[in-house]
Amino acid sequence: MKKRIVIIGGGFAGINAAKILGNKKDIEVTLIDRKNYHLFQPLLYQVAMSALGEGDIAAPLRNMLANYRNITVFKGIAKHIDAENKVVRTDFGNIPYDYLILACGVKHHYFGNNQWEEHAPGLKTLAQAKEIRRRVLEAYEAAERASDPVERKKLLTFVIVGGGPTGVELAGSIGEMSRYTLSKLYRQIDPKLTRIFIVEAAPRILGSFDPDLASKATRSLEKLGVQVWTSSMVSDVDENGVQIGNERIEAATVLWAAGVTAIETGKETGAETDRIGRIIVEEDLSIPGYPDIFVGGDQANFAHGIQSPLPGLAPVALQQGRAIAKNIILDLKGKPRKPFRYTDKGQMATIGKNKAILQIGSIKFDGAPAWFAWLLVHIYYLASFKHRIFVLMQWGWSYFTFGFGARLIVNRDWRFYPEAVACNPDREKNQS
Amino acid sequence: MKKRIVIIGGGFAGINAAKILGNKKDIEVTLIDRKNYHLFQPLLYQVAMSALGEGDIAAPLRNMLANYRNITVFKGIAKHIDAENKVVRTDFGNIPYDYLILACGVKHHYFGNNQWEEHAPGLKTLAQAKEIRRRVLEAYEAAERASDPVERKKLLTFVIVGGGPTGVELAGSIGEMSRYTLSKLYRQIDPKLTRIFIVEAAPRILGSFDPDLASKATRSLEKLGVQVWTSSMVSDVDENGVQIGNERIEAATVLWAAGVTAIETGKETGAETDRIGRIIVEEDLSIPGYPDIFVGGDQANFAHGIQSPLPGLAPVALQQGRAIAKNIILDLKGKPRKPFRYTDKGQMATIGKNKAILQIGSIKFDGAPAWFAWLLVHIYYLASFKHRIFVLMQWGWSYFTFGFGARLIVNRDWRFYPEAVACNPDREKNQS
Repeated sequence: MKKRIVIIGGGFAGINAAKILGNKKDIEVTLIDRKNYHLFQPLLYQVAMSALGEGDIAAPLRNMLANYRNITVFKGIAKHIDAENKVVRTDFGNIPYDYLILACGVKHHYFGNNQWEEHAPGLKTLAQAKEIRRRVLEAYEAAERASDPVERKKLLTFVIVGGGPTGVELAGSIGEMSRYTLSKLYRQIDPKLTRIFIVEAAPRILGSFDPDLASKATRSLEKLGVQVWTSSMVSDVDENGVQIGNERIEAATVLWAAGVTAIETGKETGAETDRIGRIIVEEDLSIPGYPDIFVGGDQANFAHGIQSPLPGLAPVALQQGRAIAKNIILDLKGKPRKPFRYTDKGQMATIGKNKAILQIGSIKFDGAPAWFAWLLVHIYYLASFKHRIFVLMQWGWSYFTFGFGARLIVNRDWRFYPEAVACNPDREKNQS
Repeated sequence: MKKRIVIIGGGFAGINAAKILGNKKDIEVTLIDRKNYHLFQPLLYQVAMSALGEGDIAAPLRNMLANYRNITVFKGIAKHIDAENKVVRTDFGNIPYDYLILACGVKHHYFGNNQWEEHAPGLKTLAQAKEIRRRVLEAYEAAERASDPVERKKLLTFVIVGGGPTGVELAGSIGEMSRYTLSKLYRQIDPKLTRIFIVEAAPRILGSFDPDLASKATRSLEKLGVQVWTSSMVSDVDENGVQIGNERIEAATVLWAAGVTAIETGKETGAETDRIGRIIVEEDLSIPGYPDIFVGGDQANFAHGIQSPLPGLAPVALQQGRAIAKNIILDLKGKPRKPFRYTDKGQMATIGKNKAILQIGSIKFDGAPAWFAWLLVHIYYLASFKHRIFVLMQWGWSYFTFGFGARLIVNRDWRFYPEAVACNPDREKNQS
């Protein structure tokens, strides 16, 4: 009788668990994800900044798992985990399991102000990356058309809320884009007048990095025209900008790179969660009281090592996915499970061309060597050889030309006759 | 005093007129388009069928015209042509002109049934290509999840309305995808059971081609599993399929490749138009009574040569754009204008790998030679060297692997908290 393993989530944790379990005898695997693709999230900001296309950083889950005959992939939503009866209730039927792996990740958190999302999209999915891309490019187009200088200033102002790696990467990209790439393309505006703000609540940006490196990154950002505001907590966001206590910035485009919260799938088991909703797991990555349910990746709170809890990084998710799969295999062989031990791969953040910071344990470096290391690591971990070639070529092209390849504004509304649809908040003024 | 030339539309006609007028002394050019990019429409079906990404076939207009200092590009809508006062009223201000070039193209026509658009998207823009891609891929995902065989059959049924080159290319792609590319990726369904219909009202498909070639194309389609229904006019389209007189096909996905109608910009001049709204032009491509207003591309009806009127093909638009620009330059030099003469570049349609048809005058061929010629021509006319390299690589990869590169389903709704937006018809069940 084959053992049935259900994996919810096809990100770094889920896909790497699946690959270990793939083609193992006596195991049937079902992987469920709301999306049909695996996303290389570390490079998502490049899609948002028009440097890469969506196909460059995402691969259909079916393709990645096609050669594992014992793995079935469904695009769908897991609505409820019935831990008593060991059944996952989805929007397309009930899936029984012997072992369950939760790897659903996180979404953005607006600190109780979900209405801010409309004005300040986050960056966790391809759809969001394209929405951000659209807003940034539309701002420049509108500025080119504008006649009022105050309106123009607002259009050429970008606020990034959150000074972690994602916020720094977004701000650095807009800095590079405005100071270099766009400079010759407009006739009415000077893109170099773009104002870019990083608004960070903590006393410094890049809090997870060594203070020296964070300080170097701040200087690199300033050289690209980014203004870094620390000890600045956003108190309100609307369509005209952000309020920071008594201070205010008028901006047409606000991007959210602060605060995440875990996806809620699995909460119904009653498992204990931390302040941001992550499920607290045992040393073997299972839920206390539920040895047949594991949690890996950003959705898990693993606090049994030097770093407690482990941060929400791609290498953590990847290693946890593999460890969970191996523990299940050990279980099936009647052997004891192994406690998870994270092999620290360090962390990196990039600001712009030749400007990055890298830290592994006590090793720290910045500048061009860090940037090339960043490139190599990201190329290496891309989903397939084809992705590596294409991304390498895109980057090669951009490196020598400072060109951003995929700077297209694609309308959200594809309809030519939108009046035939009753209500349509995405209706663009510019229908095409 | 510089002469002001306004071009509305950045497609083949508009962009090629702009390039001729670019950097000419004493000329200021303003190009307005609702989109910020030039689209290589002949390959749009490949984006719809996940074979290419959007960045492969589109280039930002600013980049294409960056080196022409006398050209200003605005992303916007021309709302009204005031021919009396020689002013274009746009959604961002009034633009006066000495010469006006209308090159707005066409949109799909539903024969008075605009409510069909929701169930049967057309293929004229990137947004539509991605909507089609989404629907096709979602159909396969839903079929994989389905338990009811009748529901499954409907999900694995695709109807393409219209048997011209676009319809044939879409149908052939789905045929190839289902019989080859997808075959190993699903566990619950056999993609080779996909039913694909071309529904054409005329007695044969590809009416603009020689009957022999059209017949060969029909056989090629059948070999890919496509069922060709001719003398079949669609009488109704709803969310469950199409009605063809007394016959009915239940299909989850219907695509519209029949009927186009010209964009209405310029109609207010009172110019005479044909049955599908195209403005009838003089031999020099100007509007009768308005020698300073020209029309080129799909929006024009030019009926002064062997083919009357000229068909809506890319080479026609390209040549007309250039001819208009040259006639304006002749005008400014006080010389007589030249009548437009189309140099017939023939026409082509592709069905699948190694299957295409090509016809120039009396020269006709099909099969692999036609297919390679098709590839070369399309590569040649792509917007830039970079596009050519990337598309060549994508095709090279697919040729040897039958892989379709960009098979990603990206949700239309990017929001995680959609309840914060009052009404949202694009809300997906699967939020991600």
